[in-house]
Amino acid sequence: MAKEIERKFLVRGNGWRGMVPAKHYCQGYLSTIKERTVRVRCCGNEAWLTIKSTTQGITRTEFEYPIPPDEARYMIQHLAEQPIIEKYRYCIPLNGLVWEIDEFLGANQGLIVAEVELNHAQDEIILPEWIGEEVSDDPRYYNSNLVSKPFSQW
Amino acid sequence: MAKEIERKFLVRGNGWRGMVPAKHYCQGYLSTIKERTVRVRCCGNEAWLTIKSTTQGITRTEFEYPIPPDEARYMIQHLAEQPIIEKYRYCIPLNGLVWEIDEFLGANQGLIVAEVELNHAQDEIILPEWIGEEVSDDPRYYNSNLVSKPFSQW
Repeated sequence: MAKEIERKFLVRGNGWRGMVPAKHYCQGYLSTIKERTVRVRCCGNEAWLTIKSTTQGITRTEFEYPIPPDEARYMIQHLAEQPIIEKYRYCIPLNGLVWEIDEFLGANQGLIVAEVELNHAQDEIILPEWIGEEVSDDPRYYNSNLVSKPFSQW
Repeated sequence: MAKEIERKFLVRGNGWRGMVPAKHYCQGYLSTIKERTVRVRCCGNEAWLTIKSTTQGITRTEFEYPIPPDEARYMIQHLAEQPIIEKYRYCIPLNGLVWEIDEFLGANQGLIVAEVELNHAQDEIILPEWIGEEVSDDPRYYNSNLVSKPFSQW
């Protein structure tokens, strides 16, 4: 069990590109209700099952378990709500933090967001120049909500 | 991944009691929609996260992963739909099969069902004398449905 404290921002420009290689993420949701989400995620030869609680402010409780990738792929394809979420993730270390930039594909193409995980909700952070508007409080940007209302339909 | 082929029956009388010790099961659901269920189950010092697909006839696809019991207990208490399911389970081997008798507690007290897992949907089975009406096709008896509509409210 972990407490996840995250802030999320839109990304502007391309100043972040070329700094780190991309990882391809493919994920589906077995539950997307607001009380709890259940996510199956694949990245290369690894996969995880992740349960997250309701968001309270920018804090969530999270449980994550590694699972066999072939089982994850079966669940994403056959059990998860459709459409699935596909994205490239770029993990950029800066000033002691790691910025995770998600460049979405498929039904969410065009959406690029950056998340940063904090130790405490009040931690001050230095914003890179490619960081735009904060969207931490906007539920439209939850990955679980990008299934039922993908960016292309906004 | 496993294919689960199960038949379920009501239990009549007490002829099955005293044959094997009871195990206490405590379980909660993170998803109970008909397309898929996500269950967290605790039994003693063991716990599992289980995903099951839609039932097709008496067959379901099932994925089960052991998880730390303290995390399971947290999820059952704080994340799962309420009320949770509590029951005693008795596993009785008979004629090459294992009958799992579930004696429900709490909001489902009074309900006792027996399940038997088969290799093939058409397998013939010898019914013990304490087996009553078959309820394999009755969704009211799905454990996931006993959360929203417990036996005491039928």
